[in-house]
Amino acid sequence: MISVALMGHGVVGSGVAEILTTHKQKLFSSLGEEIYLKHILDLRDFPDSPLCDRFTKDFEEIIADREVRVVIETMGGINPAYEFTKRCLKDGKSVVTSNKELVARHGAELLSLAKENNANYLFEASVGGGIPILRPLHQCLVANEVQEIAGILNGTTNFILTKMINENMNFEDALKLAQDLGYAERNPEADVEGHDACRKICILASLAYGKHIYPDNVHTEGITKITLEDVEYAAAYGCVIKLIGKCKLLETGLMDIMVAPMLVPCTSQLANINDVFNGIMVRGDCTGDVVFYGKGAGKLPTASAVVADTVDCCKHLKARKYLYWTDTSENCIADHNESLTKIYLRLEASDAENAYNKAQEIFTDITRLERADAPESEVAFVTEKELPYGKILEAVETLEQSGIKVASAIRIGNL
Amino acid sequence: MISVALMGHGVVGSGVAEILTTHKQKLFSSLGEEIYLKHILDLRDFPDSPLCDRFTKDFEEIIADREVRVVIETMGGINPAYEFTKRCLKDGKSVVTSNKELVARHGAELLSLAKENNANYLFEASVGGGIPILRPLHQCLVANEVQEIAGILNGTTNFILTKMINENMNFEDALKLAQDLGYAERNPEADVEGHDACRKICILASLAYGKHIYPDNVHTEGITKITLEDVEYAAAYGCVIKLIGKCKLLETGLMDIMVAPMLVPCTSQLANINDVFNGIMVRGDCTGDVVFYGKGAGKLPTASAVVADTVDCCKHLKARKYLYWTDTSENCIADHNESLTKIYLRLEASDAENAYNKAQEIFTDITRLERADAPESEVAFVTEKELPYGKILEAVETLEQSGIKVASAIRIGNL
Repeated sequence: MISVALMGHGVVGSGVAEILTTHKQKLFSSLGEEIYLKHILDLRDFPDSPLCDRFTKDFEEIIADREVRVVIETMGGINPAYEFTKRCLKDGKSVVTSNKELVARHGAELLSLAKENNANYLFEASVGGGIPILRPLHQCLVANEVQEIAGILNGTTNFILTKMINENMNFEDALKLAQDLGYAERNPEADVEGHDACRKICILASLAYGKHIYPDNVHTEGITKITLEDVEYAAAYGCVIKLIGKCKLLETGLMDIMVAPMLVPCTSQLANINDVFNGIMVRGDCTGDVVFYGKGAGKLPTASAVVADTVDCCKHLKARKYLYWTDTSENCIADHNESLTKIYLRLEASDAENAYNKAQEIFTDITRLERADAPESEVAFVTEKELPYGKILEAVETLEQSGIKVASAIRIGNL
Repeated sequence: MISVALMGHGVVGSGVAEILTTHKQKLFSSLGEEIYLKHILDLRDFPDSPLCDRFTKDFEEIIADREVRVVIETMGGINPAYEFTKRCLKDGKSVVTSNKELVARHGAELLSLAKENNANYLFEASVGGGIPILRPLHQCLVANEVQEIAGILNGTTNFILTKMINENMNFEDALKLAQDLGYAERNPEADVEGHDACRKICILASLAYGKHIYPDNVHTEGITKITLEDVEYAAAYGCVIKLIGKCKLLETGLMDIMVAPMLVPCTSQLANINDVFNGIMVRGDCTGDVVFYGKGAGKLPTASAVVADTVDCCKHLKARKYLYWTDTSENCIADHNESLTKIYLRLEASDAENAYNKAQEIFTDITRLERADAPESEVAFVTEKELPYGKILEAVETLEQSGIKVASAIRIGNL
């Protein structure tokens, strides 16, 4: 019997407790030992829980218990999860987490602490919820140079965009529906501004390339400016708009990493990932494109990934997993202004033809897009060649200085 | 430095040798040690290979070499791979393979031999080529009851069906093209009759449920009877025809397992998997549907999976991986005649209306399908309710006894 403790009995944490109970037999037959959930840390009371005798409000009880070899952290947020995790690892207890914010912010330090203390720090559930992605990326694709990772990493924004694309619902209404269904928080900023997706692409990039990538250094755009007009033009170009977290290894050895809405060709595997589902494409030099698809969030999918990591920790009580990356002061990220992309632009001007001609002068090689019932003041096009993002920003400024409003500028994903 | 040996320098084997050379640094940084390819067993001569000094024609050289801890078997076929693998495992050498035929036929015995001798037997490459599937199924989804596995497991047949669906090419022409492109063997039977897909669904089912499922016990149909008429009717019903390997756990505890062409709704993730690509859906009780997509065959994708397993073996020289299933004499497979499915039928009769009425009498609840330019003698429909396969066979016989030809009968996949 291996004793474990759970910190945080919220959505994911209660799911973990549930799976450890309902899947006891399955887990036993895989591990050959019973996993015993000895303590549950939460400041709230759960008098009706079948595990009510296990609850504690005192972290010290967990740290002091020598029998507890694995601690499951599903508290979320930085504090006190960060301090608690450090103390567990320093004590030689392995830690399993679903806390993407903490891993993206302090992963390198916590992995290093785990290594020093011959413990493990695992976080499969932090990216893609129930989708196996970190272990496959790290273990199964080890014989590949990972050239690119690109994914739909946030279910809430994918739900909103799907409603906009398939049901012609505008952003505000789709967001409200997502909130009503419990997919979006009342303060949806972390989702719709791309911060959640950013944490996840940082974790994926850190794991793939072995160096900690901090979210603050990653160019991040959300989906709040996407309109139904853009959705229509994208369709006319054979694309759907998706929020993509992407990291590409450049020949310079630097990473072209970003989170941004992109026009994704309908032929791409990522184009068919709808609603709250996530999908992650890993492009290896040997495998070619591999795509992982499934529920990126939710109580039981996420909890099942946490429990799988817990089993893995229990199997490796005396051995270390090789999952690792290091902190580095050197710059790993390429200047985003140098990032090459084709772009879709939607302009508004009193003289649309003039605006289009002006755009053609600036970009040279562009293709005009049409949509039904477009107002006369509107013109939309895509560039045929990739341009550095900085050049695109300059062009946008030139257009605006000529009295032409750039209503939308969305990258075209080469996915 | 860890010494390994390679048996079989064919397509996959030469890819393994290539990756071990070209990705030496990447593998070293993951493993912390060098993997040294000490022997390559092949009856042919490769005087131009940069590794020509490593070749041997004598298996005894490998078995006698105490330094060799891991043996990579990419010979394919049962003999002599079976004997060689047994001898390696009995000697305590771990074995890695891409040989689906051998794993499907003798997996339980070889896993048991590995266990007895404290060695590992890994075969990620045997299913899905470069797609990580066995390790995710076994490790990442351990906290799930796997309710169903369904996949496009054979790239050759998927290529043929894609050509039929997208380019209106008939089966014979598509097969010939596949052969010209090197996707199909000159004797294509193993692919087009479903045997290759059958081996793979057997390996997946064995791993998911812990009991060896033998291919000979699995109902297997190929795609040789699929016509362009069927493709058209499928499209009219919002479906594409795919060769599906499927295993569903029934409430009885038995498995409903088969390989058969199926009408797959275009909304299914499996419908969008085209050309030589494979896709495997795993339905877990906690995760819901998870789908893995990528290249299911080919030199480097498959070899990269073999090398990843090799790295895993090298990391676990003193420990056993838990991947395991047992042989069992008890019957695990449900009677295929009891397997429930909706069905699509295409009939040919001198009086098509009469044939449709007769079909309606037999099946009660059916929906007629239309296609352009159908001859007057043709009628096609789908049943609205699931029926046991045995009942469908009886109905087909009744129709044929009435002088109605059942030109096609294809299951409708609930995927």
